[in-house]
Amino acid sequence: MQQILDGNQIDALETRYRTNFINSLSGYKSANLLGSINSSGQTNLALMTSVFHIGANPPLMGLLIRPHSVPRHSLENLLEQQCYTLNAVSCDMFEQAHQTSAHYDRDVSEFDATGLTEEYSDALKAPYVLQSPVKIGLSLVETQTLDVNNTVLVIGQIIEVQVDFSLMADDGKLDLNAAGLVAVSGLDEYHKASSLGRLPYASRNGVG
Amino acid sequence: MQQILDGNQIDALETRYRTNFINSLSGYKSANLLGSINSSGQTNLALMTSVFHIGANPPLMGLLIRPHSVPRHSLENLLEQQCYTLNAVSCDMFEQAHQTSAHYDRDVSEFDATGLTEEYSDALKAPYVLQSPVKIGLSLVETQTLDVNNTVLVIGQIIEVQVDFSLMADDGKLDLNAAGLVAVSGLDEYHKASSLGRLPYASRNGVG
Repeated sequence: MQQILDGNQIDALETRYRTNFINSLSGYKSANLLGSINSSGQTNLALMTSVFHIGANPPLMGLLIRPHSVPRHSLENLLEQQCYTLNAVSCDMFEQAHQTSAHYDRDVSEFDATGLTEEYSDALKAPYVLQSPVKIGLSLVETQTLDVNNTVLVIGQIIEVQVDFSLMADDGKLDLNAAGLVAVSGLDEYHKASSLGRLPYASRNGVG
Repeated sequence: MQQILDGNQIDALETRYRTNFINSLSGYKSANLLGSINSSGQTNLALMTSVFHIGANPPLMGLLIRPHSVPRHSLENLLEQQCYTLNAVSCDMFEQAHQTSAHYDRDVSEFDATGLTEEYSDALKAPYVLQSPVKIGLSLVETQTLDVNNTVLVIGQIIEVQVDFSLMADDGKLDLNAAGLVAVSGLDEYHKASSLGRLPYASRNGVG
């Protein structure tokens, strides 16, 4: 039995209740750790649940950062170094990934605080997370502040991917179940997923 | 054993292979049906896997539309009527939802073509999907074309939600598992999810 919440009722919800409710409305989200570094070599790791695909050619990804939230250090670092990494969160390390969202001081690396391990490649300065099954290196393309609520949209181009090639199907698709990735809902719930199947390209002549 | 794909190797991938690969890199995505209507009363329904949370106060959601893709009719409609709906896709109707991505002519409603049912409320003109367990009515706030690849970012404010209140936890969070929502990976794979649990607010003093 569905009930209706109208705009006035949503506005009247207690702040924390509304945050939990609205955050869970969009459905399942991806979980990625944003790795960054500053000019002094101080690393930073932040859990992002707003990473999304923008395009495949060129290969572009977007993410949203609230300027006054924990990931502001990440934003400062990626603006300074013009690069960052995104590291998929798996069932084996989602508790450590969640822990990166604690308010650590500027001089504390979330790598040290959570026991996740830095890993570097020749392609970019920013650190990868060794434990992640899907590691993406990105070059910053642009940032833009959204007028509606001062959230910052960050767009990056993929310049490197580290993944076990056996996770890739013959047509290029990654098997996210086999990689053990988690999905997130709301601010704090983690899920594992199991496939219902791949569907064929939809034709106007009907399913299948 | 992880291997590396560098930027040049990604560029050299066959187009369809690269599309499948890059599309699956961001992780699990939400699945929502965008419902819209034009001034003649012609309805449209399009599967969106790029819906994301922007903010809770005011309650804002974003989505991305490629201007030359199937959902361009949706974009025209929401610009004309300044409203649209997002309807979460469940395990019970993901095949019909996927079928909306076929290239139907402008005068064919995807509701009729797929057997999904229009439902209306007094709050906005755009149609909801009766079969969806989480229905969101939105008022258009702004659209903006991203220079990087001409993708259109659509931002809307939530003006109504229809949901079974028993799916809401005491703190406002929706139980997406109980609602039966699917997650998507890449272009065509659907998943059900099962919770690994909710984690407490992270403190710098350690997990828990």
